[in-house]
Amino acid sequence: MMYTHEKWMQKTLTLAEAGRLTVSPNPMVACLVVKDGKLIAQAYHQKAGQSHAEALALDLAGEQANGATLYINLEPCCHQGRTPPCVDRVIASGVSRVVCATQDPNPLVSGQGIAALKAASIDVIEGVLENEARTLNQFFFHAMIMQRPYVIAKWAMSLDGQTICADTDDCFITGEKSQQHVHQQRAMVDAILIGANTLIRDNPQLTVRLTATEKQPLRVVIAERGGLPLDARLFNDAYAFNTLVYLPSGEAELASSLQKKDVQVCLIAPDPLTVLKDLHKRHIRSLYIEGGAKTHKKFIAADLVDEYHCYIAPVIVANLPKKTCVLPLVAEALGDDVFISAKIKRSD
Amino acid sequence: MMYTHEKWMQKTLTLAEAGRLTVSPNPMVACLVVKDGKLIAQAYHQKAGQSHAEALALDLAGEQANGATLYINLEPCCHQGRTPPCVDRVIASGVSRVVCATQDPNPLVSGQGIAALKAASIDVIEGVLENEARTLNQFFFHAMIMQRPYVIAKWAMSLDGQTICADTDDCFITGEKSQQHVHQQRAMVDAILIGANTLIRDNPQLTVRLTATEKQPLRVVIAERGGLPLDARLFNDAYAFNTLVYLPSGEAELASSLQKKDVQVCLIAPDPLTVLKDLHKRHIRSLYIEGGAKTHKKFIAADLVDEYHCYIAPVIVANLPKKTCVLPLVAEALGDDVFISAKIKRSD
Repeated sequence: MMYTHEKWMQKTLTLAEAGRLTVSPNPMVACLVVKDGKLIAQAYHQKAGQSHAEALALDLAGEQANGATLYINLEPCCHQGRTPPCVDRVIASGVSRVVCATQDPNPLVSGQGIAALKAASIDVIEGVLENEARTLNQFFFHAMIMQRPYVIAKWAMSLDGQTICADTDDCFITGEKSQQHVHQQRAMVDAILIGANTLIRDNPQLTVRLTATEKQPLRVVIAERGGLPLDARLFNDAYAFNTLVYLPSGEAELASSLQKKDVQVCLIAPDPLTVLKDLHKRHIRSLYIEGGAKTHKKFIAADLVDEYHCYIAPVIVANLPKKTCVLPLVAEALGDDVFISAKIKRSD
Repeated sequence: MMYTHEKWMQKTLTLAEAGRLTVSPNPMVACLVVKDGKLIAQAYHQKAGQSHAEALALDLAGEQANGATLYINLEPCCHQGRTPPCVDRVIASGVSRVVCATQDPNPLVSGQGIAALKAASIDVIEGVLENEARTLNQFFFHAMIMQRPYVIAKWAMSLDGQTICADTDDCFITGEKSQQHVHQQRAMVDAILIGANTLIRDNPQLTVRLTATEKQPLRVVIAERGGLPLDARLFNDAYAFNTLVYLPSGEAELASSLQKKDVQVCLIAPDPLTVLKDLHKRHIRSLYIEGGAKTHKKFIAADLVDEYHCYIAPVIVANLPKKTCVLPLVAEALGDDVFISAKIKRSD
């Protein structure tokens, strides 16, 4: 019996995943209507503001929902948001049992949805594939529990741990696959953050370009003082409205200049926790910090980094006028460490 | 037919490998005597100064060698070393065919052994599993062709590329498996090299301790100036005689003090190529550079590093007063790059 629940729940989780790039700030949710061991209807939440998975699936099931079992990876909501509460809809549908993977960590729900179902004499089974369901929506769970976004710190470095080359040398870059991987990460998060130094030195775009996406992440700059270049790409491209700059309160003039360019500005002390709390209020569930080292250090020092992403390029910088290529890298786990080796090909 | 040769040669290579930790400065060599598809005798070179594989195998085969095929991974030697030339012995044995993987890159041999066999009307087949045979003895081939040791540069660093922690913090160390791996590497090389700074700062032992070995590598220190601590472990432990210090020629007094402790001293300008050429004269086929960064940089700048070994510990240093543990690391190849990620476990 448990096996059946797990099988249906696995299918539910796989279906929910389809909303990964579009549902935030909502969680990914899917719903299956099953009766006599047969799948009657299935649906997933496609985009924030649109119908929830339960409503979509029950619409499809119609009268067949009567006496059926509902599989959902998250407890149905019981509060009025942009859409009506799902519990009411579930109760009205006549289903006799609801199997769900986890409670909703949203303080507005957290068990009340399940309690309402039980009060309506619906059988409720909780905790089926709970860990998998939490992992699926780890950004959402983290944000709801910690009241701040899930933070990923990302950087690229050479095999000898350098992030920049000598002034005399070209900047090293990671390969095409790593760059695609970075763009996939960008597509999955709600916001990307850099410090003022990176803005000035790299003048990056911070958009999703190398992979398909339906939305661009919010681009966040934290600056400890003014002096930001008004001609930066982030302030002038087609997504300028999607850039948010944290500035100290004394920088009203710079703020005004930025706002004239449609850039969003927040005048607060740009320390990591204050910024994360503010981003949480803006419904940012996940933040990808692309550097530089000084910005990373601030978030690490405040113990606010939840995940580290390090890309190692097959070059040795060693503070030399010209970097050395060390292709191919071979990586293997050695206990808790990672061992990377590279042999130099010589024409011997 | 070719398949049979490869099968026997694979067996030869595997047997030769048994001498890895003991044969240097000689190459690893094994010899099989095969007749009518049956293995008559086999032997491998066990230690420099002792009998070569051909002589050992032919001793075992006795008269059965007559008309047999000899499999050897390296061309038989034709010069008088500490043991008599093997070609004479092979010719005298009456074998009708010799199959070998590679010519001997030693300038004293390089094809002359094979020429001598052919001149004695023995069939010679060359090049069976040649690449595998060269890889097996890569230190030896490199040393013979380049006239300098094969150089491996090794270091350990944090996930954020730092090799040292803040003064306020404990030094991070790699785990037990990495340390064992390092000692296995030490057991495989002829010499280990460090710079004066590492001698002063770490006072290392540079011995093989965490794995079985029959010999200890030569411990080499390069110093650009004097001022070495005479109480360093390398100069006072049971292997002090096995320490070699390169000093500038003006340091005769320090040299004399070291020599009184049985330490070997060489008074030359300690630049990388000069040191390697001198080590080559001392029959050092492989050198493992354990740092520090300045010493690595010198060898890298001179394009004298043949292999890089980088151990990454699951910590973030970030120049903070205390490092952060980022366990477990997950590594994967992304094209030519390596991607390493780590999730921080929080009690949420």
